Amino acid sequence: MAETDIIPRATAQRLPIYQHHLKSLQDAGEKSTSSQEIALALKFDPATVRRDFSFFGELGKRGLGYKIDALVEFFAQKLNDVKQNNVILVGAGNIGSALAKFNFYTADNVNVVAAFDINPAVTVVNDEDKQIPVYSMGDLVAKNKEIGAEFAILAVPESAAQEATDVLVEAGIKGILNFTPLRVNVPKDVFTQNVDLTREMQSLIYFVDNKDSIKSI
Amino acid sequence: MAETDIIPRATAQRLPIYQHHLKSLQDAGEKSTSSQEIALALKFDPATVRRDFSFFGELGKRGLGYKIDALVEFFAQKLNDVKQNNVILVGAGNIGSALAKFNFYTADNVNVVAAFDINPAVTVVNDEDKQIPVYSMGDLVAKNKEIGAEFAILAVPESAAQEATDVLVEAGIKGILNFTPLRVNVPKDVFTQNVDLTREMQSLIYFVDNKDSIKSI
Repeated sequence: MAETDIIPRATAQRLPIYQHHLKSLQDAGEKSTSSQEIALALKFDPATVRRDFSFFGELGKRGLGYKIDALVEFFAQKLNDVKQNNVILVGAGNIGSALAKFNFYTADNVNVVAAFDINPAVTVVNDEDKQIPVYSMGDLVAKNKEIGAEFAILAVPESAAQEATDVLVEAGIKGILNFTPLRVNVPKDVFTQNVDLTREMQSLIYFVDNKDSIKSI
Repeated sequence: MAETDIIPRATAQRLPIYQHHLKSLQDAGEKSTSSQEIALALKFDPATVRRDFSFFGELGKRGLGYKIDALVEFFAQKLNDVKQNNVILVGAGNIGSALAKFNFYTADNVNVVAAFDINPAVTVVNDEDKQIPVYSMGDLVAKNKEIGAEFAILAVPESAAQEATDVLVEAGIKGILNFTPLRVNVPKDVFTQNVDLTREMQSLIYFVDNKDSIKSI
């Protein structure tokens, strides 16, 4: 299967969305689909879907539709969804604790294995299945030498976000899911995904209040 | 202040981010800033910042920098942050309950006033400040006639997402913060913002695993 080596970040962002949708179709017993159908279901532009898929080589004969089983297999490889990813949580407060218990839907490749907090009164995050130990922030670098996690969920107050990030970088973390509104500074080889809940809510309010003055581009 | 009437959705999405950053500068006693500095702090392209600001008329003399107080005032008006927005929560599970307690940082314009769940065993979501009543899903339309909320946080299982959305639309909800991975169908006058936590985590893993084959565009 011929592939372009370099794909745009925006395309990469959509991979898990495609895979999730294709798995739903597969579970429903569907055998084939089209870029048109995918676009409709995911509220994407059909041209976006076709362009994205063009980065992954010849995934199916367009005229006859894409073969779902082959696509699921292909994306599973791309997303390497058999690799187990250890994740540490930093900030075991309200949202952090909920995220530690979150099953990331059907993603069996994400394991929240430990949490860190400055508050020593917090001792464990209860989960239905497992207890997640909560350690002191001061132990993070040493503990992660044992754990070897590459990923972290950052759910500390904004004022502590950069300092906590610096500790994560020192501990060898390569990917940070950042729930603080601060755009933290990281070295080039560390990735961040920003999930800013306040911003999402404020944008939503703005869209509703200004629905006649928004271009949908 | 001359303004373009129509602004792109992507620009509108960034408004709360600008405002949050400018308020931090204001709190720190800063008086002026530049598109370059804003871009650096927010990890945006400077051209993006300048283009965004161009939609909002003449906000300051570029050569001398933007005046922070004036910008904060201007964005506060744009974002109408004195308007109080009632929000209902649908799905009072793990993440939903955490979101109901979430203070959306310093956004004083968001009030989660009621929650709805199919599980009658759930009765209240405890918050530090207030108790949020939890009603049965079947009462949502009638209850929202009293409450008059325009916004909802959707945190139900994916399999229930479209059905719950249909109820929200019937109840007059105009904006949905959607935490399910389903891209729900809504009428044209209803807005959705998708916060798909699994997708964010899977994208992050993909970026770290494929760091040499991602274009940052």
